[in-house]
Amino acid sequence: MGGRTAGSAAVLGGLGMEAMDRLASRREAALEDLVAFLAIPSVSSVPAHREDVRRAAAWLAERLERAGLEGVRVHPTAGHPVVTARSAPVPGAPTVLVYGHYDVQPADPPDAWTHPPFSPRVADGRVYARGASDDKGQVLMHVLAAEALAATGGIPLNLRFLFEGEEESGSVHLHDFVAAHREELAADAVVVSDTPMFAAGVPAICYGLRGLAALDVTVRGPAQDLHSGVFGGAVANPVHELARLLAALHDADGRVAVPGFYDGVREPTPAERAEWARLPFDEAEFLRTTGSPRLFGEPGYSTLERVWARPTLEVNGIAGGFAGDGRKTIVPASATAKITCRLVPDQDPVAVVDAVVRFLEARAPDTVRLEIVRHEADPGVLTPLDHPVVAAARRALAATFGREPVNIRMGGSIPVVHTFQSVLGAPTVLVGFSLPDERFHAPNEFFTLDNFYRGTEALVRLWLALAGRDGAGAADGGAPRGGEKEHTP
Amino acid sequence: MGGRTAGSAAVLGGLGMEAMDRLASRREAALEDLVAFLAIPSVSSVPAHREDVRRAAAWLAERLERAGLEGVRVHPTAGHPVVTARSAPVPGAPTVLVYGHYDVQPADPPDAWTHPPFSPRVADGRVYARGASDDKGQVLMHVLAAEALAATGGIPLNLRFLFEGEEESGSVHLHDFVAAHREELAADAVVVSDTPMFAAGVPAICYGLRGLAALDVTVRGPAQDLHSGVFGGAVANPVHELARLLAALHDADGRVAVPGFYDGVREPTPAERAEWARLPFDEAEFLRTTGSPRLFGEPGYSTLERVWARPTLEVNGIAGGFAGDGRKTIVPASATAKITCRLVPDQDPVAVVDAVVRFLEARAPDTVRLEIVRHEADPGVLTPLDHPVVAAARRALAATFGREPVNIRMGGSIPVVHTFQSVLGAPTVLVGFSLPDERFHAPNEFFTLDNFYRGTEALVRLWLALAGRDGAGAADGGAPRGGEKEHTP
Repeated sequence: MGGRTAGSAAVLGGLGMEAMDRLASRREAALEDLVAFLAIPSVSSVPAHREDVRRAAAWLAERLERAGLEGVRVHPTAGHPVVTARSAPVPGAPTVLVYGHYDVQPADPPDAWTHPPFSPRVADGRVYARGASDDKGQVLMHVLAAEALAATGGIPLNLRFLFEGEEESGSVHLHDFVAAHREELAADAVVVSDTPMFAAGVPAICYGLRGLAALDVTVRGPAQDLHSGVFGGAVANPVHELARLLAALHDADGRVAVPGFYDGVREPTPAERAEWARLPFDEAEFLRTTGSPRLFGEPGYSTLERVWARPTLEVNGIAGGFAGDGRKTIVPASATAKITCRLVPDQDPVAVVDAVVRFLEARAPDTVRLEIVRHEADPGVLTPLDHPVVAAARRALAATFGREPVNIRMGGSIPVVHTFQSVLGAPTVLVGFSLPDERFHAPNEFFTLDNFYRGTEALVRLWLALAGRDGAGAADGGAPRGGEKEHTP
Repeated sequence: MGGRTAGSAAVLGGLGMEAMDRLASRREAALEDLVAFLAIPSVSSVPAHREDVRRAAAWLAERLERAGLEGVRVHPTAGHPVVTARSAPVPGAPTVLVYGHYDVQPADPPDAWTHPPFSPRVADGRVYARGASDDKGQVLMHVLAAEALAATGGIPLNLRFLFEGEEESGSVHLHDFVAAHREELAADAVVVSDTPMFAAGVPAICYGLRGLAALDVTVRGPAQDLHSGVFGGAVANPVHELARLLAALHDADGRVAVPGFYDGVREPTPAERAEWARLPFDEAEFLRTTGSPRLFGEPGYSTLERVWARPTLEVNGIAGGFAGDGRKTIVPASATAKITCRLVPDQDPVAVVDAVVRFLEARAPDTVRLEIVRHEADPGVLTPLDHPVVAAARRALAATFGREPVNIRMGGSIPVVHTFQSVLGAPTVLVGFSLPDERFHAPNEFFTLDNFYRGTEALVRLWLALAGRDGAGAADGGAPRGGEKEHTP
């Protein structure tokens, strides 16, 4: 465990102490709220749960009302509802948008659960239920933190809440919703609690995500599957030609071989590389998690650098001809590969896809036809580490968990973060309180109650810090910290 | 149309003339038999038709009895029955095994048929029904030809009949059946009528088939599909590695790049190449049939040479990861390719598979695990063109169709032909009377009645010729032809 930091010595003012006391004295009620929220099977991807998703939205809206928030609304969409709310206005204070989701993954396979997924079970300092860690627990923490401040003198900044019900089914309607409500959602920054800490006891601030560009590549040969006895040897086989194209996409050492693919890639800074090298990252454990024979990737980069800061091109799936049990002796009519690229700043997603398409088109022989379908293309995002929200989160986490948080990126993509950037002009900081082993998306998901309680306190500290009211100014030497205010629009 | 040949002038003896007259006078009854046989939906691959397959076997056995054949038996197997029969013994005469199948392909999709597939429709000189061309029509022709001879003085050689009910579902039990009945089935040669003529009016003798060796290649990486954001870039992607392996199997010009793959390949003789070059083969029409952008294959060989006389390696199917609608951003756990090689004499099938396996194993990187499953491996077969059955078939077809037959090979594989070679030591000659456009395996299958009637006559002539009783000896200069007898065991 890392050493205690100056942040942990920060002195909370009266408002903060009262809010903390209130949270500490109401842990039982908080847990009851969590259990009630988790008992609603708000599985967004399963049509049979449509009404459950609606019930979860209504429960959340009612809870936001009860927390003392204003303008609580349940917005219907073409899919599942969006729930919004805001705190009482504080002119001149920063505005922060809090994003989370109240829908959950399916609980398949049900037999793999030792306890019914929507009958929350509290045991061993954990609550077991689908959605406990991802993301209902963390959504509720934001409601509880806001409530604690609202009930003890007021929330000292402008909070906006945006909770969607379609995160686990692709956030299909969220981009349009944000665009349509850009005025109400306008903020200096976005805070998302939907990610894990780096490890147990190691709080993390995630300031970077990879983007995603997708394309499907189909090679067509014969008009239909051909008898490989009658025609085999006389026409090109689309699987062979697709394999040649895919094989050319990478060097033998794993580097993407498409000219222009790395154009614009921002190298991690020496400071970032140094910090990541110091992280308590267990490479053997990471390998064990994958089950692969060994790790492998672009030369010159560590494993964390490869997944956080380097772009990749992966074939996510391939299909062609007959691959079932038994045998069909055919020359297949076609073969398709589904490809996604994980992108990093400052790659241009469209330029990357253009480069891949050019590369494939130049190599496809005239014995087959090449068809490429382009899908979404979202860039990677990075929030500057000197942003006031990062500094505030740093102080709040250090004070709460007793160790300096680590600054991390994530290799995954959260398209809505790019929406916040592009539509609202707001950078996003991911401050999450789940743990990597909490089985989100898997059977027997759980959430660690200690992190549930302490994380709620951390959020109180975060809002106080952003408002310059966490006493850090005094602890740092007396000068009031006005940095945050500079970012108020 | 080619010129008339000496064969067409061969003088039939009394027995032959009577048999021919009998066939000519009973065409209506023959067509009634054909319609009755086709009306039984003997779809071997569909369990619901099990009883229909049994009925077809019983119908065929009854018809063989009525034709005057001996020892007619319906043998149960673990699958569908095998029907056998024999002609009255003629000591010292050649013995020929006739093979065919009374089961049929499914009639899917039923909507694509303009007339119900098992309600035979006679129109335009054709009979339309599932199995008309493949292979019930040709099976019945053998029964009718034998009957005509039996009823007019006797069949002048030893015929054995072997009709199976599982050809369209893999001939699963036939190899063991042949091995268990090798004494009763022993023959100097096998005649199969289950192939097309080269074209309308162009009779063909097929004396070569390609063999088939099959293997499945799986590349495994992670223990399960991995999130491509969390792990992408840090482990090898099995689809990429499989693509690299498959891409290496062929040169860019289509030649198989596996060392040793072509070991033992018997080049077509100059005479064969010359004969094939003279065939009325329409390359533009062949291309049109495939629907491919253009033809493509091993340099230095014509299209017919490529499919008849050159071995191939084709990926029949490939699968890995998620290739359905939508998207799963994963590093797939594995990817599999199903491969078959078409083989020609004198490749050793096991050695070919060994070479492919060695090639793949040597190239698979240690970032993944390679799994190879070997399946069947049957060699290509060639019946020498100077075999007496070929000479007899040549005379019979020329006399019947008024033009010299062409000698062809086929690129497909009929595993039972290798069984006849390996278990019975008997070469096979394929003398078929369907036409390439008769839609076998497709909706609206039909059989051309003119070929049904004339083909039956050709079979009468074939048996007479093999017995030296078609007058060819006289036509050739008077010396009795005893060549066939030399091959009597």
